[in-house]
Amino acid sequence: MDIKQIKDDKFLKDLNNKQLAELAQEIRTFLLENISKTGGHLSSNLGDVELIIALHKVFDLDNDKVLFDVGHQAYTHKILTGRVNQFKTLRQIDGLSGFLNSQESPYDVFESGHSSTSISTAMGMALARDSNKEKYEIISFIGDASIANGVAFEALNNMSHQNSKIIIILNDNDMAINKSVGAFAKSLSRVRSSKTYVKFKKGFLKAFKFAPKFTNFVERVVHRIALIFRSDNMFDNFNISYLGPIDGHNFKRLIKAFKMAKNYPGPILVHVKTKKGHGYKYAEDDKIGKYHGVGPFNIKTGEMITNDIKGYDSFTNIVANYMYDKLKNDKDCYLISSAMIYCTNLSKCFDDFQNQCIDVGIAEEHSIALANGLAINNKNPYVSLYSTFMQRGYDEIVHDVCRINSNVTFLVDRAGIVGEDGKTHQGMFDVSFLYPLENCIITMPSEGKYVKPLLDCLDKIKGCKFIRYQKHLTKLSDEIINLEFGKFIFENYDVQNKISIIACGNSCAVLKEMIIKNNYNINLINPIFIKPLDEEALMKIENTNVVVYDNTSVFEGFASAILKFYNKINKKIDTYCLPNKFIKHGSYDTLLKYLNLDEESVLNDILKKYGKN
Amino acid sequence: MDIKQIKDDKFLKDLNNKQLAELAQEIRTFLLENISKTGGHLSSNLGDVELIIALHKVFDLDNDKVLFDVGHQAYTHKILTGRVNQFKTLRQIDGLSGFLNSQESPYDVFESGHSSTSISTAMGMALARDSNKEKYEIISFIGDASIANGVAFEALNNMSHQNSKIIIILNDNDMAINKSVGAFAKSLSRVRSSKTYVKFKKGFLKAFKFAPKFTNFVERVVHRIALIFRSDNMFDNFNISYLGPIDGHNFKRLIKAFKMAKNYPGPILVHVKTKKGHGYKYAEDDKIGKYHGVGPFNIKTGEMITNDIKGYDSFTNIVANYMYDKLKNDKDCYLISSAMIYCTNLSKCFDDFQNQCIDVGIAEEHSIALANGLAINNKNPYVSLYSTFMQRGYDEIVHDVCRINSNVTFLVDRAGIVGEDGKTHQGMFDVSFLYPLENCIITMPSEGKYVKPLLDCLDKIKGCKFIRYQKHLTKLSDEIINLEFGKFIFENYDVQNKISIIACGNSCAVLKEMIIKNNYNINLINPIFIKPLDEEALMKIENTNVVVYDNTSVFEGFASAILKFYNKINKKIDTYCLPNKFIKHGSYDTLLKYLNLDEESVLNDILKKYGKN
Repeated sequence: MDIKQIKDDKFLKDLNNKQLAELAQEIRTFLLENISKTGGHLSSNLGDVELIIALHKVFDLDNDKVLFDVGHQAYTHKILTGRVNQFKTLRQIDGLSGFLNSQESPYDVFESGHSSTSISTAMGMALARDSNKEKYEIISFIGDASIANGVAFEALNNMSHQNSKIIIILNDNDMAINKSVGAFAKSLSRVRSSKTYVKFKKGFLKAFKFAPKFTNFVERVVHRIALIFRSDNMFDNFNISYLGPIDGHNFKRLIKAFKMAKNYPGPILVHVKTKKGHGYKYAEDDKIGKYHGVGPFNIKTGEMITNDIKGYDSFTNIVANYMYDKLKNDKDCYLISSAMIYCTNLSKCFDDFQNQCIDVGIAEEHSIALANGLAINNKNPYVSLYSTFMQRGYDEIVHDVCRINSNVTFLVDRAGIVGEDGKTHQGMFDVSFLYPLENCIITMPSEGKYVKPLLDCLDKIKGCKFIRYQKHLTKLSDEIINLEFGKFIFENYDVQNKISIIACGNSCAVLKEMIIKNNYNINLINPIFIKPLDEEALMKIENTNVVVYDNTSVFEGFASAILKFYNKINKKIDTYCLPNKFIKHGSYDTLLKYLNLDEESVLNDILKKYGKN
Repeated sequence: MDIKQIKDDKFLKDLNNKQLAELAQEIRTFLLENISKTGGHLSSNLGDVELIIALHKVFDLDNDKVLFDVGHQAYTHKILTGRVNQFKTLRQIDGLSGFLNSQESPYDVFESGHSSTSISTAMGMALARDSNKEKYEIISFIGDASIANGVAFEALNNMSHQNSKIIIILNDNDMAINKSVGAFAKSLSRVRSSKTYVKFKKGFLKAFKFAPKFTNFVERVVHRIALIFRSDNMFDNFNISYLGPIDGHNFKRLIKAFKMAKNYPGPILVHVKTKKGHGYKYAEDDKIGKYHGVGPFNIKTGEMITNDIKGYDSFTNIVANYMYDKLKNDKDCYLISSAMIYCTNLSKCFDDFQNQCIDVGIAEEHSIALANGLAINNKNPYVSLYSTFMQRGYDEIVHDVCRINSNVTFLVDRAGIVGEDGKTHQGMFDVSFLYPLENCIITMPSEGKYVKPLLDCLDKIKGCKFIRYQKHLTKLSDEIINLEFGKFIFENYDVQNKISIIACGNSCAVLKEMIIKNNYNINLINPIFIKPLDEEALMKIENTNVVVYDNTSVFEGFASAILKFYNKINKKIDTYCLPNKFIKHGSYDTLLKYLNLDEESVLNDILKKYGKN
């Protein structure tokens, strides 16, 4: 069939298993070709094609509701709900979102981007459904890494007091973003490989074969099966029945299991084994998450089409290289990641310094409290995370680390506009939620050359320190930099200049080139230390027109601190910051232009206002 | 013995069990008498007297380190580390902290106030210890409610990859702040009441009796015992051995168990059953948490010495009464609490509307995602929490609720200075971390009379709404109030006035009385809607000297928004806000004076600056 013709999932009802398998093959081919051009989340979407087709076949999604946890694994769902022709615009501005989006489709009932909240949400929706005496299924579709997070545990734990039925489909690809870790994962892996698996499988098929109307009989069987799994399976402790493991690439078994779950009267978890990257050798063999989220790549060779520019590297990579040397030379140094090793280029660190590197899985809160423990015992821990995921550990930052000024360094990747991942991923709030905290040192390099000196400078200070950096490529340089703690860098300065721009991050580097090239009489200040505030520098430019230009954060925090300072001396300033809005997806450059926060727009605006001299 | 003479815990080594019991009795009597005068955390501290004495007897706390989770249950620890004579200053400014405090004692190695991070922290400390090849014990002392939180789960889950030894002492009083809830609690309760308990107890005592040097033998015994408990005990799933349950008021058993745990080579959990409020009838019989945190009370009658003033009531109570009516009249209304029912006066709501009220245990993250699910299915959920604990659910607020403008109302209690609980509990950051978020409505009543109209007004708006209120008593009034959404209230206004004070919360009510009494020519503006900003009101006073007076929040957020507004029209303003510092404990009034943020100081400052007319 031609998948481009798919308007909705109704046609699935008439397909037999062979036809479903053909459809899966077509979708997989389409996804591979499309993602190889647009970039996107590859492995997870190749892994759950059959699973999502079976879901759409068994359930009636005009009534039943599926909540895709995290939401980057639902490309097949998008195709089956009539969005196949929008895939060429995937993750582009005003194009198809890489995540679920209720504006795109009424079948996207739950929007997400951060993991592990789908079970709680499904429980809330189920409570509402039952109180309305409505009848439909609510399904949380969640991966094996996400279900091991604290929020998911809180939901499972609370289920003992709620009998509202939900179905949890556990999409277990035994890998998550990096290799999933922890007791939960071990418990799943015991089930996967245990002998009882075979017993169960037979039992299940038999039960199903002889009992098409099976509510009670099946209930007994499922409970008996659960009994066999006792001590092998963590779910026995929760008020939820367990069905599995099911081969996630076998339509016959998937469909039977989903029908069984649909007819089951209480909360039930269906444990489905899938292979991440299924059908694409390179992604199947990938053990480190290289094909999790990709840019364009060559399908034949599996090679990424990089934007590498000679003489440039990413902030992420420069930080990773620094950490490699640091781990090598400082045996008190520890590096903690929450399942984001590959995306933060830390694989080499984790491979070569296993005793000093800890992957805690998707557990930002624990990662920060763990670092705090290391710091209390005089170690030198670094916590690596994305700005947006740091929100998950906010209380541990405030209450555990900053309050006692614990010696923890946070490597905050993906600060500012991250682009294609959109609203759920922009790293725009970290400065605003950190700034009011005592003991909190916040820094941001504008160029690669500042990274090492900055990290060296921070390393000398015992306390709670954040270095935030963008997703960007940045120019490499051999220039030797001497940084002084807490001091802004005057990238361009003349006492005669009438305009001073305080510009954060990469845009500072871009502006510098523009100002020098055009010989503008503008002071350019690089606030590499965002907090504490360099008041001396602010005094130095007090008689100029001061502009704060920060397209990496909202106004609250850094810009507001500068404004507060100048207000004391009755001075007006201009601020260009990210708006207090969730910012949609699109490429970095497109979004900055869309927000009128690109360097050219802002500089023109300033020149128009204050003149060129 | 005279407990006033205790300088350290060394004397414990020489005491036999009978003498220990006498000591426990003395400490209990002292605690009861002292807390009945000063207020403080009563039930938990009466419950763990023997437990903490045994801990100090068996372990060598000059080397071994105890981390008290939450930290409000460690009064006996304070006594045994030489702080008994400071108890008369408990929770007063510059007096003894109600929590652990490393400034007070080197034996307070971990400071806390929010629950459930002690296991993670202990794990980090243990990693550090082992890498240094040091030998000492690290003990997480944690309650049955705290261990069921998501962070604690993340830590237990991660333990499968860490073999560093820690000891977890699970202080299980089967109650927590409210009755603890969830699968974890059920699992514990099965252990508590199971027949295998007796078997185990005998096995344990026997093992101990015949094998004083027992590392390997005991290891076998413990593992065998764990086997008996399989399927009864959630801890079997984690990489931690289990010992228990132990009678927490029996020195012989406690001491044996702790010695066993000390000698055990790997991570081990000692499950200790205690009775909250032990030895004080009223607290023992308390099922709702009335004696959890108390003010002064009458020991004989158990009656609280209230500060009730005729014609006054607490914001907390006024909100609770509103919710009672709301739950009664709106069957789509739901109320969710994270184990804080009693402290937020919601017991009556939870008793009478069980189908609409959900206590999720200490699980702020889950509570918010659950509310989001209810809202997605068109219910009207209210989430009740303290400002400081809301930090734990920040990501769910940003990512799950605000981003999609979900219809959830947050009842944010204990906003601003909370006083006696100190640094870990001040509710001073919520406005700063909420303000930058799109779709976020923030409100704060200054007086009780505004609460109902405000909640009614918010109820008409579908979206993400916060009402924050202080711990205060507030004047009751029958005045009929008409609120307009988004509009400040002009409590005092004359077009001729040269000074305008925008004053938040209770201080606005206090200032109003002062201004009227003294007939000052000052406009007083009550910003009941903190966000969105009432720009029209700000324009109305643009030609006066504008002062923002907010002793409930830091500058970032509300005050910074007003400053941003006036900066556009080149206007300087004055701001009086909480400093970017963690604020110590003490009574509300004392702290405000200490910060120079009491109404009198601020008003005098303003009058001095701008004159009385």
